Amino acid sequence: MTNSFHPPVRTLMGPGPSDVNPRILEALSRPTIGHLDPAFIEMMDETKALLQFAFQTSNALTLPVSAPGSAGMETVFTNLLERGDKVIICQNGVFGARMKENVERCGAEAIMVEDQWGCTIDVDKAERALRDNPDAKALAFVHAETSTGARSDAEVLCGLAAKYDCLSIVDAVTSLGGIELKVDDWGVDAIYSGTQKCLSCVPGLSPVSFSDRAAEVIRNRKTKVQSWFLDLNLVMGYWGSETKRSYHHTAPVNSLYALHESLVILEEEGLENAWRRHALNYQAFAAGIEALGLSFVVDEEFRLPQLNAVSFPASVDDARVRSALLNDYNLEIGAGLGALAGSVWRIGLMGFASNKKNVLFCLSALSNVLSDCGMETDSAKAIAAAQSIYCN
Amino acid sequence: MTNSFHPPVRTLMGPGPSDVNPRILEALSRPTIGHLDPAFIEMMDETKALLQFAFQTSNALTLPVSAPGSAGMETVFTNLLERGDKVIICQNGVFGARMKENVERCGAEAIMVEDQWGCTIDVDKAERALRDNPDAKALAFVHAETSTGARSDAEVLCGLAAKYDCLSIVDAVTSLGGIELKVDDWGVDAIYSGTQKCLSCVPGLSPVSFSDRAAEVIRNRKTKVQSWFLDLNLVMGYWGSETKRSYHHTAPVNSLYALHESLVILEEEGLENAWRRHALNYQAFAAGIEALGLSFVVDEEFRLPQLNAVSFPASVDDARVRSALLNDYNLEIGAGLGALAGSVWRIGLMGFASNKKNVLFCLSALSNVLSDCGMETDSAKAIAAAQSIYCN
Repeated sequence: MTNSFHPPVRTLMGPGPSDVNPRILEALSRPTIGHLDPAFIEMMDETKALLQFAFQTSNALTLPVSAPGSAGMETVFTNLLERGDKVIICQNGVFGARMKENVERCGAEAIMVEDQWGCTIDVDKAERALRDNPDAKALAFVHAETSTGARSDAEVLCGLAAKYDCLSIVDAVTSLGGIELKVDDWGVDAIYSGTQKCLSCVPGLSPVSFSDRAAEVIRNRKTKVQSWFLDLNLVMGYWGSETKRSYHHTAPVNSLYALHESLVILEEEGLENAWRRHALNYQAFAAGIEALGLSFVVDEEFRLPQLNAVSFPASVDDARVRSALLNDYNLEIGAGLGALAGSVWRIGLMGFASNKKNVLFCLSALSNVLSDCGMETDSAKAIAAAQSIYCN
Repeated sequence: MTNSFHPPVRTLMGPGPSDVNPRILEALSRPTIGHLDPAFIEMMDETKALLQFAFQTSNALTLPVSAPGSAGMETVFTNLLERGDKVIICQNGVFGARMKENVERCGAEAIMVEDQWGCTIDVDKAERALRDNPDAKALAFVHAETSTGARSDAEVLCGLAAKYDCLSIVDAVTSLGGIELKVDDWGVDAIYSGTQKCLSCVPGLSPVSFSDRAAEVIRNRKTKVQSWFLDLNLVMGYWGSETKRSYHHTAPVNSLYALHESLVILEEEGLENAWRRHALNYQAFAAGIEALGLSFVVDEEFRLPQLNAVSFPASVDDARVRSALLNDYNLEIGAGLGALAGSVWRIGLMGFASNKKNVLFCLSALSNVLSDCGMETDSAKAIAAAQSIYCN
């Protein structure tokens, strides 16, 4: 016979999932109701309005896809693209490559504009690609690269896309709720995110939003969307604004309670306050990390406060450090991904996990473990450096 | 400012979601851990083993897709089919039509074999189609049609598919955990289900299983699966048997806690006991329904104990009855779907909701509401009829 599973209580400072606010876990466990229940439909409407607030948009086509962020990415590409379309993808990490996979599996062509991992996207190269490919339908890029911790200038890139009459497609999986993001002001056409990053909700849903122009493209497709499950022309029969909602698929009811609660919390805090909190905790953390003798992959100007790619000396045993943090401190940090595997850690300060307690705990634990692994560190100095930021 | 959402406490006797066992809601709210945490990976392995038990299979390729049942359906078709393939679909309700949509969106051809709604699938017609289409790759059908409450003979249909060298594809969304289902004994090649029906778990995941033969077809595809998110060749890097799991997408961690708990509960009860419980509660319910003067859509032999399509007289106001049940009794029953809309209710007795309390409560409430709506009913007689089944 199998026993019930009781997870250990971890501190989640990897690339996501991040620590979930207990209020959200409690909301998750509220009694399940039907996905066509009038009370549920009211909650769906509130969730849409809250997502519009989080994305800073009045886009009518704003909703959570009933599956994780990767499905949100796929929703955007499969709905906007038809066979033979051409998309320019600016890649500076793992997730640009995933975009390429998505585009190609739609029977479309991906024009890759590659930047170095850990760097921001070069807007001049992006513009050259737009100029060289006047038949491109869209420009796609990652706002906050979870694999490297680099932020790109979404506002400028969306402006460029508009200038060359392209749709702009933005991956905001790690940015939503953590750094400035203004869908309407920046003219974003299509955007997707995840719930398990700076919203501090459980993983499993993907908020998306489409401008009216993008929605028009979807409505006027010549061919059917290749995915029935992700076909927004069908999904909108359920999530749309009509009073009568028609069944498409069974919504993940309880996960949607959790998303609703996480957005209520974000509204209570205020978007700008959430961004400021992420910035402050990053500054304290960075001061501590540098005091420990470690360095960042990304230039300061382009660093994400919510996801820190930290380089460590080659003498340090990557796996040993992460195991010790997990086993002795119940602290999860992330390994490097792709080209950065084995040479960096990805340390998240996302959503609810972006707080003073986590910053100080992580610096202490990391310092102890590094010192056990033979690296000379001064934990008192690191803590003092972090504290001094909070005291300013 | 938006308030937290506190759902009403309903009794869920529609076509799903069904009442969720409180143990499962509690499991759902346990602390989130990382999707690559060793403790989580151990739980994933247990979940796979429990799913193998529930499906009665030793298939290595058995896992829960990170999205609702419709995505499980799409996983099966997109992974098994390539452009130009031909699939025979036996349709006797809504979900056969959804299969057709899926097949066509894969660029494959659907040969439809239509049966009347509410009837079991005619195996002779299925065999004729197999004989007439020797180039068909698969035979697909719904084991338990949620839109009509009809059961089809999955064992015989899978045997026919094998005889004509076709893969068998079975929709078991509503059957898993509620009626006899034996994947290995019956020679099922590909099967998908949902969590929110007879497993009484929250909606949002779709257990799937593939025979070695079907897994081989997926491994030897000439073209990539059109969905990146659902591509099992990639998903298996995360769910496979290797000790080292590689990141594909972020698993819906807490929903998987819930699925694990629901399967632990099923294992504790025993599969045969769960089937017997569903059968007994159906018998009591049916006795009561007939005593109320209502009738069933499906012939007794082919009725699903977990989903009862009940016809009502044309004089009865469908919407009024369902609203009264919802508002005055917090009781959800389902409306008719597709061809049966407006003339039947779908009353579920699924999983945790298949119990004596729900049977008696539903009969009493329905009787009261029908009588308020001007139909002559005898609630005492209905209750007595149901009770007599339990007392036998």
